[in-house]
Amino acid sequence: MNTQSQRTLNVANQAFGYFVQGLETGNWQAFLDMLTDDFTFWFPMGKFHGLNVGKKRAKEFFEYVSEAFQPGIKITSLDGITSNEKTVIFEFRDEGNLFGNPYRNRVAVAFDIRDDQVCAYREYFGSDGKSY
Amino acid sequence: MNTQSQRTLNVANQAFGYFVQGLETGNWQAFLDMLTDDFTFWFPMGKFHGLNVGKKRAKEFFEYVSEAFQPGIKITSLDGITSNEKTVIFEFRDEGNLFGNPYRNRVAVAFDIRDDQVCAYREYFGSDGKSY
Repeated sequence: MNTQSQRTLNVANQAFGYFVQGLETGNWQAFLDMLTDDFTFWFPMGKFHGLNVGKKRAKEFFEYVSEAFQPGIKITSLDGITSNEKTVIFEFRDEGNLFGNPYRNRVAVAFDIRDDQVCAYREYFGSDGKSY
Repeated sequence: MNTQSQRTLNVANQAFGYFVQGLETGNWQAFLDMLTDDFTFWFPMGKFHGLNVGKKRAKEFFEYVSEAFQPGIKITSLDGITSNEKTVIFEFRDEGNLFGNPYRNRVAVAFDIRDDQVCAYREYFGSDGKSY
């Protein structure tokens, strides 16, 4: 792995740690601090479906996630990390309660890294929110 | 990138080419020939939802895909390729007609490679099948 790819992976690993912290505790500040001002994200469904632009929108989204999932989402398995010079994708499984209903999913999230920050995020679902 | 990672990427690129050919034409033979006998795959929804085991099951699945999408699925954008020594993930957008209805999606597929073959496949959806 070349130096740039290693640096990208290091930054993404740090961001993913803060992301997991946000999912578990609802405290998103450390994660949000790593986003570029022009951060964009794609989400598969619901009120944030499609492309979302800007750090303010990201804050709304992640706070909405923590309102929807009480008392937080738990990562039950980290299944893989793949990367190149720009992007790192984490495959994992999670579970929690979505508006009071049991929730489980398989997820892939891609983080694009630029200058030690996360400039983009793409989320993909590998299951139906009911089972792995 | 080390030698093993490069080899894995080369095999996955070849498999992805055959995968695209299958999606477009319904001819899956070249792709199926690259699967190990113990091939497994995960799919997000429908009759193949969850974990599927075996090459025979894979053949049923990919032939079902080509029955459902007539006259085939077209990859409209290859958005990214990330990899490590074992796994390569392709992010792309596709479109077609699913049982006659317009279909569009954002997709991530992970190929696990072993001994120049594909031993596992995981598919994730980034949209709702109606739009990117």
